[in-house]
Amino acid sequence: MSGRLIGVGTGPGDPDLLTVKAVRALAGADVVAWFAKAGRRGNARATVEGLMRADAVELPLSYPLTTELPTSDARYGEAIAGFFAAAAAAVEAHLVAGRTVAVLSEGDPLFYGSYMHLHVRLAPRFEAEVIPGVTAMSGCWSQAGLPLVQGDEVLTVLPGTLPEAELTRRLADSPASVIMKVGRNLGAIRRALEGAGKLARAVYVERGTMARSVTTPLAAKTDDVAPYFSIVLVPGWENRP
Amino acid sequence: MSGRLIGVGTGPGDPDLLTVKAVRALAGADVVAWFAKAGRRGNARATVEGLMRADAVELPLSYPLTTELPTSDARYGEAIAGFFAAAAAAVEAHLVAGRTVAVLSEGDPLFYGSYMHLHVRLAPRFEAEVIPGVTAMSGCWSQAGLPLVQGDEVLTVLPGTLPEAELTRRLADSPASVIMKVGRNLGAIRRALEGAGKLARAVYVERGTMARSVTTPLAAKTDDVAPYFSIVLVPGWENRP
Repeated sequence: MSGRLIGVGTGPGDPDLLTVKAVRALAGADVVAWFAKAGRRGNARATVEGLMRADAVELPLSYPLTTELPTSDARYGEAIAGFFAAAAAAVEAHLVAGRTVAVLSEGDPLFYGSYMHLHVRLAPRFEAEVIPGVTAMSGCWSQAGLPLVQGDEVLTVLPGTLPEAELTRRLADSPASVIMKVGRNLGAIRRALEGAGKLARAVYVERGTMARSVTTPLAAKTDDVAPYFSIVLVPGWENRP
Repeated sequence: MSGRLIGVGTGPGDPDLLTVKAVRALAGADVVAWFAKAGRRGNARATVEGLMRADAVELPLSYPLTTELPTSDARYGEAIAGFFAAAAAAVEAHLVAGRTVAVLSEGDPLFYGSYMHLHVRLAPRFEAEVIPGVTAMSGCWSQAGLPLVQGDEVLTVLPGTLPEAELTRRLADSPASVIMKVGRNLGAIRRALEGAGKLARAVYVERGTMARSVTTPLAAKTDDVAPYFSIVLVPGWENRP
């Protein structure tokens, strides 16, 4: 008699890039939960506009305001852990009442998605399913028409929040890379690419598959202003025909 | 008056994991092309059964039989290059005649997909669009309910065809990894994981999201028999709640 948890990947932003399974899950959900900054709806919620039941309950899960703390600060860790525990409790109340809860997740739920923090807390005790989604990086390289990796090539996915020296080392060591979470780190990312000898190959994509999207060689971008959800692609296949 | 090329990601195998956009493109295509071994239909074609127009022309693109040659052999490279050139010419003939050609690609077209060999040859001269798909790896970790990477973690995607020493080095250097193209390389992959101290965390997935799928800790799998499209996942987030 208890409910069902579904992590729903909403893809890179274009609503047509939801899967058939995700569309069906949204049409059947009693409750639709989504993570976003306080007072915002976020990209995932915007992507599913019009796809939910008219009587679905919306459950916004608003991140605590921690931008003034560095992520290495213990208080940041405590605030975030407390937030995810509270978010899980809010979802659990609906599951206990027998409802089906769809949790939206930009891109793919188990690939850097906040949904995974609910999954590890609730899946041991409730029926849970994860519907994979098209990742933001796939949306970006497809829009750019940029073959990313082929044959025996290694791909490294790097959060742009890493220290610059580690970014440089890993970029130099990989035939192809994707840098996520660009935002305020673009200056350091640019220097790391230069240090690794990869700047000339790097492509910058902002708002991939969405309205007002930007695709440009990073070397041609004249500022280091970028939204958090922009991506830098370093394609492999250097000797392509 | 010339036609249109569309690379269509067909996802990891479950037809419900096609995107809405992919379903629409298949319903509109005059020609549906797909790569497969000679005499086989392959996973991508099987996934889209029933989604094409009744009058669509099917264009199978059959890989040459090169399994007796190592990929480092020059004759292998020549055979494959000749094959992709011929495949592009076959697709081009339909484009010149003004037809819309959908080329199926398991997972995501520009992520290790054969479609990219057509794209680089034809996109400079014809209207071309790439519809991203859910990757096989996303399908596998979602089915396993296994959070793969979170926060600042690096993900390394490794073709299992790499030399064992390189596999070992890269596995040891990455908090999370995915090993693709497992097949006959499973013995070497297992040794590399052991050498990197990661065997206990590794999860083996065969036929992810499809019928008769297998998910098991790799350490519990008692043989090294695996289909080419099986995957090994090494999740990050070691200190998860």
